[in-house]
Amino acid sequence: MVGPFPEGKGLQSEDPPSGTGGMREIVKLVEEIDREGMQSILLSFPQQLRLPPISPDIENLPRPRQMVVVGVGGSAIGGDIFRTYMARLSLCPVHVIRGYCLPLWVDPKTLVVAVSCSGRTQETLAMFQEARKRKTPIVAVTRGGDLEKAALEAKIPVAKLQGTSPPRTTLGNTLSILIALAQSLDLIPQEDPLEEAKTLLSDMAREFHPSRKGGRAFEMAEKLKGSIPLIYAGGPSLEAVATRWKGQFNENSKVPAFTNTFPELGHNEIVGWEGDMNPFHVVLLRDKEETDLQSKTISATLDLMRNRCRGVEEVRSRGENLLTRLLSLVYMGDWVSYYLAIIRGVDPTPIPLIEELKRRL
Amino acid sequence: MVGPFPEGKGLQSEDPPSGTGGMREIVKLVEEIDREGMQSILLSFPQQLRLPPISPDIENLPRPRQMVVVGVGGSAIGGDIFRTYMARLSLCPVHVIRGYCLPLWVDPKTLVVAVSCSGRTQETLAMFQEARKRKTPIVAVTRGGDLEKAALEAKIPVAKLQGTSPPRTTLGNTLSILIALAQSLDLIPQEDPLEEAKTLLSDMAREFHPSRKGGRAFEMAEKLKGSIPLIYAGGPSLEAVATRWKGQFNENSKVPAFTNTFPELGHNEIVGWEGDMNPFHVVLLRDKEETDLQSKTISATLDLMRNRCRGVEEVRSRGENLLTRLLSLVYMGDWVSYYLAIIRGVDPTPIPLIEELKRRL
Repeated sequence: MVGPFPEGKGLQSEDPPSGTGGMREIVKLVEEIDREGMQSILLSFPQQLRLPPISPDIENLPRPRQMVVVGVGGSAIGGDIFRTYMARLSLCPVHVIRGYCLPLWVDPKTLVVAVSCSGRTQETLAMFQEARKRKTPIVAVTRGGDLEKAALEAKIPVAKLQGTSPPRTTLGNTLSILIALAQSLDLIPQEDPLEEAKTLLSDMAREFHPSRKGGRAFEMAEKLKGSIPLIYAGGPSLEAVATRWKGQFNENSKVPAFTNTFPELGHNEIVGWEGDMNPFHVVLLRDKEETDLQSKTISATLDLMRNRCRGVEEVRSRGENLLTRLLSLVYMGDWVSYYLAIIRGVDPTPIPLIEELKRRL
Repeated sequence: MVGPFPEGKGLQSEDPPSGTGGMREIVKLVEEIDREGMQSILLSFPQQLRLPPISPDIENLPRPRQMVVVGVGGSAIGGDIFRTYMARLSLCPVHVIRGYCLPLWVDPKTLVVAVSCSGRTQETLAMFQEARKRKTPIVAVTRGGDLEKAALEAKIPVAKLQGTSPPRTTLGNTLSILIALAQSLDLIPQEDPLEEAKTLLSDMAREFHPSRKGGRAFEMAEKLKGSIPLIYAGGPSLEAVATRWKGQFNENSKVPAFTNTFPELGHNEIVGWEGDMNPFHVVLLRDKEETDLQSKTISATLDLMRNRCRGVEEVRSRGENLLTRLLSLVYMGDWVSYYLAIIRGVDPTPIPLIEELKRRL
């Protein structure tokens, strides 16, 4: 098979299938290719899922009419999962803005949460300064940098992100901070919604460990090798998870990937399948909470889809509560994109083109 | 050149370049392939841009704290352009929801605008009924169908969409209704913001007419032939326009297409370019209102992009006011996707896979 991607020095497609799944081979490959240790960061992800203590200056903020999380890339994706959770549970609208400036409606009754892992993201700093001019309440979520400095100078509360790993690996930490923040503002119930996820994801970490041949995550990565992943969310509640999968395929595996969501994709994207869908392999994300119309639409679309692209992988959420279900899908995608990097022979951690772009700015 | 798409009976890539642009040939091709008359619908698009009179029952609605436009596909895209315009001009947040159900925060202070061209879109009808249960103010925008019937029965105001052409061709009409609605609620100034666009788009209609060889729209379609278009918005204010281009490539040209937006795409998608970007041709949408950081980021990204994909087409907005600039880009995309259909030899109007999906539901 000739895929569109050069295979690097990972598993070669000539390898017999029995060989590519061998435990020793996978452990060896991971050691050779994952030089900056993404594996151990992935394995420790469940430990990020705990509500941090909230400082008194945050607890004293006024209860907002709406919340806006500003940020880009790996710093924004925690905001997307948070937004999805809040939309089901809270009367306070939450919006995520990945931009250069704020909409006019961001006013003093809006709480702006500026998230920048490094604290040096220029777009986020610009929106932070704009929020200051509009006199909105602000919380800064960061490890330090200019954002922490500017916030401290302006007596704006700072919630600190932990660790030194790449921004995209701090999703659990960011999400935990945002949930603790919403609880301290009485926007959602006080119970800990992350307990179930922490246990389930710890089980998944064992399941996908290289010593277990990577489980289903490795198998799926093998199937996706040489294709362009199209991540289809079964509904708007999984849109943020699809965005996460896409970003992880881009950053970990260094391949293009795109997303769409039911019901919208049935109203335009499927007509594009009349063209050649040969480079694409669909990953369909599903949740157990589907309306009848939704389940029916997904099934009918699946039938139309199967013979038009290279294949369809269906991934179902696990666990009971919504956050667990979202995070179980996130974690699966993190592992699949990790193993796709390994199979392609590219180190999952470095992101050379982002570094190059930053150098040129 | 071997592109991923079968070329149908449109222009063959073996034709010498001097031949492919010939006026007589293009007029003949259009006549042969555009059997359902998309051309005349396209030519009349500028005439949709006029504020309709607003009925007294709409004028009597309470001023909302926020607006939610619900709908999918061609019925939702007018809402996206409206949302972009409002974000710059109004203190009232506008959100577009393409889903099966409403977020919890949609409350009686939220105005829900349910847009379904046919009036038979099941997702929109479901959200309409949910809004009724929550006792929110509602306006229905439709040509008729179950939505009009349910609205009239419940004494909910209906704004009628005109004509019988496909939903995606009613963007101008939908947008005009939404703007008139916002004006009647005193959410934006009372002047007519569509006058400039109407004049400019009428000029563009002449420029892109088959009798003028389709102008730059035809040239761009020729360049995109055989590639997968990637529509990159220069910033969040052009995100809705990029969504429109994507949908029109899907529905008119019957090819896959995807979008992304600065600054987000520089934080994950570009790393995917380390993989093979050979099937992709980038269309970069730009507006004259760019921050320095934005312009710098776009230029630096362009440099990184050029040698990694099949090509980059830069399209700049025209006109003075924001709506004109957005609509000038929308209209350009409508023509490019139209000519790509003609060149590929597929009738731009029918959308067989959507019809097939509807039959199966």
